[in-house]
Amino acid sequence: MDFSSKLLENAVNEMSQLPGIGKRTALRLILHLLKQPKDQTQRLSQSLQQMRDEVNFCKSCHNLSDTEICEICANPNRNERIVCVVEDIRDVMAIENTSQFRGRYHVLGGKISPMDGVGPGELNIASLVEKVKQGAIDELIFALSSTMEGDTTNFYIFRQIEGYNVLTTTIARGISVGDELEYADEVTLGRSILNRIPFENSLKSS
Amino acid sequence: MDFSSKLLENAVNEMSQLPGIGKRTALRLILHLLKQPKDQTQRLSQSLQQMRDEVNFCKSCHNLSDTEICEICANPNRNERIVCVVEDIRDVMAIENTSQFRGRYHVLGGKISPMDGVGPGELNIASLVEKVKQGAIDELIFALSSTMEGDTTNFYIFRQIEGYNVLTTTIARGISVGDELEYADEVTLGRSILNRIPFENSLKSS
Repeated sequence: MDFSSKLLENAVNEMSQLPGIGKRTALRLILHLLKQPKDQTQRLSQSLQQMRDEVNFCKSCHNLSDTEICEICANPNRNERIVCVVEDIRDVMAIENTSQFRGRYHVLGGKISPMDGVGPGELNIASLVEKVKQGAIDELIFALSSTMEGDTTNFYIFRQIEGYNVLTTTIARGISVGDELEYADEVTLGRSILNRIPFENSLKSS
Repeated sequence: MDFSSKLLENAVNEMSQLPGIGKRTALRLILHLLKQPKDQTQRLSQSLQQMRDEVNFCKSCHNLSDTEICEICANPNRNERIVCVVEDIRDVMAIENTSQFRGRYHVLGGKISPMDGVGPGELNIASLVEKVKQGAIDELIFALSSTMEGDTTNFYIFRQIEGYNVLTTTIARGISVGDELEYADEVTLGRSILNRIPFENSLKSS
């Protein structure tokens, strides 16, 4: 693309570094900013900069937090001995929205993915294993997405903590509530039959 | 959404002000920035800020430009008496890419759209009419998109310059080169028959 302005070109180039944003989309977004008052761009620019410079990761669970220890870890009403292992903050937000979990989290910051150059050393696995070894955890709930990378990561952690006195569970996979059986994929439907639960138990959650 | 960090929440809120970017997408983009080196966010933030603060509009054609007069208007090899009326810089870039136009542009900065609160006063129409009244233009080519807003804007300008000695033309609408007739919409196909041109003329452009 041939821009008439170097400033515009720079901004478009930087914006199009973001995932899923091409040059055309970037140009559309920036022309939108040009039509808005200057302080909108200023607020966007400052909030990004400030967020990147100042945001912390909770020392205990590695979730994003403005404070040293995040609100969830600092809450004495939550059970610190039940820990849910998730990939990033979006999963924490999703589980928190259900109001069904009163334990704590451990945010790995990604999944083991050799294709993307992400090994166990890049993730917050060592501190989790350390907690288990110290006997600080009774139950570890694996809640990573069920992709090859997620399964690999689960298995890697599982091997590291094998032999220590900790219960490891994984969230239930099955047919979504409200879904029709005929449209479900075979793997999910197969698992939901293998992992069937006593009918009485299904009444509890509602 | 319930964020664990106020800084993150601010950044997501500002990012999701952009058109077509919802809160989820904004969060995805920002988590991406957090995984990248700090200087990427810094460059994005600074380029946006600098662009918004320092970018100019060409005094002659109102196109985006780093200088007072843009490159196209400053080029003595381009015919200043043939002016193509476009909506914004994207249209200028598209026409420039064809290398078929050696005149100048006049960038309106939008289309008349009462629904969005855009009247003729918000657009760069007065300066165009002024140029016509001074007899500085021989031909005005309307190249706005053929929507109701585009047609309204064309007609508004046309009425303003009626009676002055200027030729007004509009870009040809018809079947795209390479398109099959059977898939063309009726309006376009109808117009392409009404506005047929001598066969010899069609040989010139190739």
